[in-house]
Amino acid sequence: MSLASFENPVIRGHRRMVLLTDGHSTPFLAKTAINLLRYRGQDVIGVLDQHEAGKTAAEVFGVGGDTPVVAHLQQVPNADALYVGIAPPGGKLPLEWRDLILEAIDRGWDVVSGLHDFVHLNADYAQAAARVGVHLVDVRHNHYRDIAAGRGLSDRCVRIHTVGHDCSLGKMVVALEVQRALQAAGHRAQFLATGQTGIMISGQGVPVDCVVADFVNGAIEQLVRATEDAEFQLIEGQGSISHPAYSAVTLGLLHGCAPDGLIYCYEAGREYVKGLDQVPLPTCEAQLDVLQRIANLRHPCEVLGIAVNTRLLNAEAAAAEVRTAEQRFGLPACDVYRDGPAKLVAAALTLQARRLPS
Amino acid sequence: MSLASFENPVIRGHRRMVLLTDGHSTPFLAKTAINLLRYRGQDVIGVLDQHEAGKTAAEVFGVGGDTPVVAHLQQVPNADALYVGIAPPGGKLPLEWRDLILEAIDRGWDVVSGLHDFVHLNADYAQAAARVGVHLVDVRHNHYRDIAAGRGLSDRCVRIHTVGHDCSLGKMVVALEVQRALQAAGHRAQFLATGQTGIMISGQGVPVDCVVADFVNGAIEQLVRATEDAEFQLIEGQGSISHPAYSAVTLGLLHGCAPDGLIYCYEAGREYVKGLDQVPLPTCEAQLDVLQRIANLRHPCEVLGIAVNTRLLNAEAAAAEVRTAEQRFGLPACDVYRDGPAKLVAAALTLQARRLPS
Repeated sequence: MSLASFENPVIRGHRRMVLLTDGHSTPFLAKTAINLLRYRGQDVIGVLDQHEAGKTAAEVFGVGGDTPVVAHLQQVPNADALYVGIAPPGGKLPLEWRDLILEAIDRGWDVVSGLHDFVHLNADYAQAAARVGVHLVDVRHNHYRDIAAGRGLSDRCVRIHTVGHDCSLGKMVVALEVQRALQAAGHRAQFLATGQTGIMISGQGVPVDCVVADFVNGAIEQLVRATEDAEFQLIEGQGSISHPAYSAVTLGLLHGCAPDGLIYCYEAGREYVKGLDQVPLPTCEAQLDVLQRIANLRHPCEVLGIAVNTRLLNAEAAAAEVRTAEQRFGLPACDVYRDGPAKLVAAALTLQARRLPS
Repeated sequence: MSLASFENPVIRGHRRMVLLTDGHSTPFLAKTAINLLRYRGQDVIGVLDQHEAGKTAAEVFGVGGDTPVVAHLQQVPNADALYVGIAPPGGKLPLEWRDLILEAIDRGWDVVSGLHDFVHLNADYAQAAARVGVHLVDVRHNHYRDIAAGRGLSDRCVRIHTVGHDCSLGKMVVALEVQRALQAAGHRAQFLATGQTGIMISGQGVPVDCVVADFVNGAIEQLVRATEDAEFQLIEGQGSISHPAYSAVTLGLLHGCAPDGLIYCYEAGREYVKGLDQVPLPTCEAQLDVLQRIANLRHPCEVLGIAVNTRLLNAEAAAAEVRTAEQRFGLPACDVYRDGPAKLVAAALTLQARRLPS
């Protein structure tokens, strides 16, 4: 398969997107909207949340500049698409959004959703969309049905996979930042999205958490195989290897992409599994130990560096946390937002020099 | 959810089953048929394979006694169901079976399949079945959509999970044999099926390899929760923790059922991953090391014993292999077919005595 099999031209074509977060604008729930503002902000003309209307995106989400937050779709009349901007655990579409979605369709906008509740399977939406002639895009919808071969990946492309302590602490962001920095330095680096937000940003990828379990490893192996002409692949991670709900996704992804290097992401101060009630996180050390062993059962793999998410800390505490991380793990560490990804890029280049067949 | 949510009364009701293995009667491909003959033989009246017709099931499969292998469905006219008896990698239905399936439907038989290609979604089969009034049962078809909570399982029911070196080496058989032996000894022991064959045998379970990846752990957690009134749960394992294609399934199942004890299964002499081309297996020691660590990230768990599959060995070599396994792993070991499961049952009872709150 070529990369084209994993691309979505409809998503790529949108230039006047409205992000829907109505009533769900906390950073955890609205992470899709937040990252679309960050990485595709030029294509976003507004965010819909009645409770935050009148503010700017920057005021509500800390990103997105002056992009207006509005209470009604009529305030952004020239949009071309409504994007569901939330990623709640379990992926259910809020029932109260029904009228908003129908209104967007009636206005001639495409509707793009990354939830497990598919909009294209809702009879009312489908009828309206057919009548108006717009697309209903369910980013998670897929038909992968090939099992992984477990061998035959290129040894000329360095596969780097972001893994982490928990959900929702920056694995996609770190992969994107390292890919962009490698590209800026003149390297052919490919970001491979594996989640709804990454796919909405890049217009390609595998919605791995919605693949039928037998084919998770295989879908990711195919995605990797389709882009082996790159020097580097930055494969977005999901969940965590110990996640009570999502570890199946995490391991299928890890074995499917058979990484040469891992970047381990954690958030300073996080003690409990996000979205679950009072389930404590294991230590980073216990996870890293298991990650290295289990990755190496598939393919020789090392940990390149640590990406620390310091969003809860002030600048001084953040710098101290990063220094502590370097000592604690004996690896280069940084917060990609505060420090940039230079240390992780350097580690990737060192791995490339060591791994590539001469 | 109660256990009833996981039960299939149609499957349980069949008493005159014909197993379809036509052209695929090798032990690896026909493992569904072989285990239906073994564990539900009283409900099987014939096997259809033109290439082996005229023989008995025992002659072709080594199990099933005098059950005839036939060339045509008309030779078993009073059947009530046709069971697809194969489990090929990837789960595709052989195209050449189309006419046989339509003939079975026309004869008024239900059709039961455990493949990923769903028979009930085939328009020709569906029309014929509706006309005749028979059931098309796709054992893998499911709609699990709840994520795991990661906590709250009973500490009064001992959860025992069979894991293994590879696919297709006896994880289901070992779970069934231990469950039956515990039951025979007067204990309330529940077998929990997680694959097509186990579901066809027991009429209940979760087809875990066909669950959408995000919900794998959750579906298994629900299955466990539904039967916690048992003293013991014997949860059938799938794949292996290092399987290049199926490790997502294996880990989701392991973390979903949060076992107290593992029984590790391996086949003497197996060196390569079954069904994949020349992918070597890791050592049992490397796998066991990772299994213990990764299981304990979810819930305190120990390895109870080793189930050795000695099908390739003669009696003397088999006995030697089992003795070697006891020394190699420092754990009780047996081949459940040759030796019975008594050592594993004893280990389960010891764990119960140690684990149960007093």
